[in-house]
Amino acid sequence: MSPVRVERRGIALHVLLTRPERRNALTQETMEALLAAFQDAKESDARAVVLRGEGGQFSAGGDMSMLGDIPPPADPDPLFPVYRRMGHVLELLNALPQAVIAVVEGACTGGGLGMACCSDVVIVSEDAKIGLPEARSGFIPAQVIPHIVRRMGEGWTRRLVATGAILDGRAALRDGLAHILVSGREEADRALAEVLEQVRRSEPTAVAEAKRLVISASDRPVNETLDDAARTIAALLRAPAARAGIDAFRNKRPPPWAERPSSSRL
Amino acid sequence: MSPVRVERRGIALHVLLTRPERRNALTQETMEALLAAFQDAKESDARAVVLRGEGGQFSAGGDMSMLGDIPPPADPDPLFPVYRRMGHVLELLNALPQAVIAVVEGACTGGGLGMACCSDVVIVSEDAKIGLPEARSGFIPAQVIPHIVRRMGEGWTRRLVATGAILDGRAALRDGLAHILVSGREEADRALAEVLEQVRRSEPTAVAEAKRLVISASDRPVNETLDDAARTIAALLRAPAARAGIDAFRNKRPPPWAERPSSSRL
Amino acid sequence: MSPVRVERRGIALHVLLTRPERRNALTQETMEALLAAFQDAKESDARAVVLRGEGGQFSAGGDMSMLGDIPPPADPDPLFPVYRRMGHVLELLNALPQAVIAVVEGACTGGGLGMACCSDVVIVSEDAKIGLPEARSGFIPAQVIPHIVRRMGEGWTRRLVATGAILDGRAALRDGLAHILVSGREEADRALAEVLEQVRRSEPTAVAEAKRLVISASDRPVNETLDDAARTIAALLRAPAARAGIDAFRNKRPPPWAERPSSSRL
Repeated sequence: MSPVRVERRGIALHVLLTRPERRNALTQETMEALLAAFQDAKESDARAVVLRGEGGQFSAGGDMSMLGDIPPPADPDPLFPVYRRMGHVLELLNALPQAVIAVVEGACTGGGLGMACCSDVVIVSEDAKIGLPEARSGFIPAQVIPHIVRRMGEGWTRRLVATGAILDGRAALRDGLAHILVSGREEADRALAEVLEQVRRSEPTAVAEAKRLVISASDRPVNETLDDAARTIAALLRAPAARAGIDAFRNKRPPPWAERPSSSRL
Repeated sequence: MSPVRVERRGIALHVLLTRPERRNALTQETMEALLAAFQDAKESDARAVVLRGEGGQFSAGGDMSMLGDIPPPADPDPLFPVYRRMGHVLELLNALPQAVIAVVEGACTGGGLGMACCSDVVIVSEDAKIGLPEARSGFIPAQVIPHIVRRMGEGWTRRLVATGAILDGRAALRDGLAHILVSGREEADRALAEVLEQVRRSEPTAVAEAKRLVISASDRPVNETLDDAARTIAALLRAPAARAGIDAFRNKRPPPWAERPSSSRL
Repeated sequence: MSPVRVERRGIALHVLLTRPERRNALTQETMEALLAAFQDAKESDARAVVLRGEGGQFSAGGDMSMLGDIPPPADPDPLFPVYRRMGHVLELLNALPQAVIAVVEGACTGGGLGMACCSDVVIVSEDAKIGLPEARSGFIPAQVIPHIVRRMGEGWTRRLVATGAILDGRAALRDGLAHILVSGREEADRALAEVLEQVRRSEPTAVAEAKRLVISASDRPVNETLDDAARTIAALLRAPAARAGIDAFRNKRPPPWAERPSSSRL
């Protein structure tokens, strides 16, 4: 059975990790499957991507089984591309044009935490176990570091790598990693449905352009972002979607993209 | 009537938005008035700038009436300077040498949220409605993006642009956007008076220099900030204000800048 | 008596400020002693560095006694190296390879806050008094600014320098400066023992490498961090520590570095 299952439901593509008995730890096979799933998502007409682990486990990060058979050093090092692969998965996830929603239950460590930090909305369960405990086994969280520092700051990240401390959902909300705190599976489902409804009411090209401008803002001078943003909004305002949206706003009607098909399944 | 009213009260210049019936949405006229007000503030001897909307509304951002009549594309695009104008308003606000205090009640979206993110102290009312809901109408928050990312981080901003979610005052305090949470108008007035009293006790040149060093710190190497800071403090310590301040500290007297005129109106 | 006392207890080097009657304010002598202590720590085999003030006072920052006798301006300015010295103390602290734990009780202002912002774990007492009140005496927090902005963001820092506001321990936890909130000395001791136990379970080379990658992540392109991280983890996985750690994980035994000597004193 594949370690990743992809399901389209209404506007959302659900990317589900299917090995809860291994706390959805990431093998090479999982990473290849995630790469393929995110590549497909990028090219699909889905307006949201939901990332979730089955069985109440988000992901415990790199599977320890990957560490059994370490090849001897060589030039080039055969381990190098193995580890960089996780970096590619995260970069692809981070740059998706859709709204990306992570539903974090149970284990969320290492690469799991990295995926949460590349999402737009994080729903977290009180029982979540969040951290970077790699040093407890003598190694490090490698490919997730820049994404976690960027999202959560240096202080938060240093505390986790220096101690291996594990945080729960309530701490994740307080610290700004998560946006919505839920008590369990049922409440998580309800919260997800509400977020997907918010996404459905948002015009997808505008969401994609805003995400692009936000993500690039840290990497370029303010004036460059402002010039790009002014050109982008001018183009959007002349496109049919915004004309219809502004018209709908004035007439207190829902805009076309927010209309719910009579038999929708969100 | 002008959409902006400026009043000097004691050490503070109050910049008030006067169109609560439009939730203090920003028209071109409002932006010109804000540019003028902030330019005047910069050159005045006021030690604090208070930004507030009348009628319990901070600002709902760009007025939708601006979107009625979109000119056709041209080179140069006539829309470009219209949107960049908001960028100039925010840059001027962000760089003011005085302590800038935003009192956020009611609507605080788009350009309104941008102004809050360019202030030094944010007092927020529980009933505040904070967000970036532009994509709900098919366009984007353009000129505010770099300021919001810089202040609140990429994760917080991505969640708002991807969903159009609206946060209340309590969430704004938890997330670090706001510093003081109040239950309504009266408590906001009291909190503002206390902050202004803190500003009155702070030496204005020291505040301006510290703000300058803090704002530039993200944009230059650590050593450059440290060299600049060491030169700046050496100059301040030789100036009469610091000599009087240190003397006052030792003698447990208030320093000269903190003396309250007998008939002061803060 | 020296203003700094260093004690080795088990895996930790305790760096203690010994002038509570001056709220552990920092004189030139204190800074020289801290430089020496951190230099020794860097070269020692201690796995944790604990920073704490005696008498329930962390540190009130630069001692006002340093400000009595300001030399006239000259080229080069004799004040310049005096102030840059604090910058060197903080850079050395920030770059220590060990887990650094600050126990913050009572005064934590100016240079004291700077030291907290260069630590990996901050335990804070409810009664802590945290801030940057220098402008109240007419000068500025100089050498701490880049570290505080980097750790806490521009908005948090601007509010403190513009107003001189003082925060308590609860606010420090909410705002992400502190990781653990305690009610007083006894609870602080217990929290510190727990953090040291977490550090003892973490492999020291992995902690040092992870800290290095986290701290450098903000200063270089993502791809550079990811390449470095992939090379670093490949090297760690081939080292004896990780082999023993992974083996211990599989056999549900504690790894060698986590074994507690029968007569350990943490």
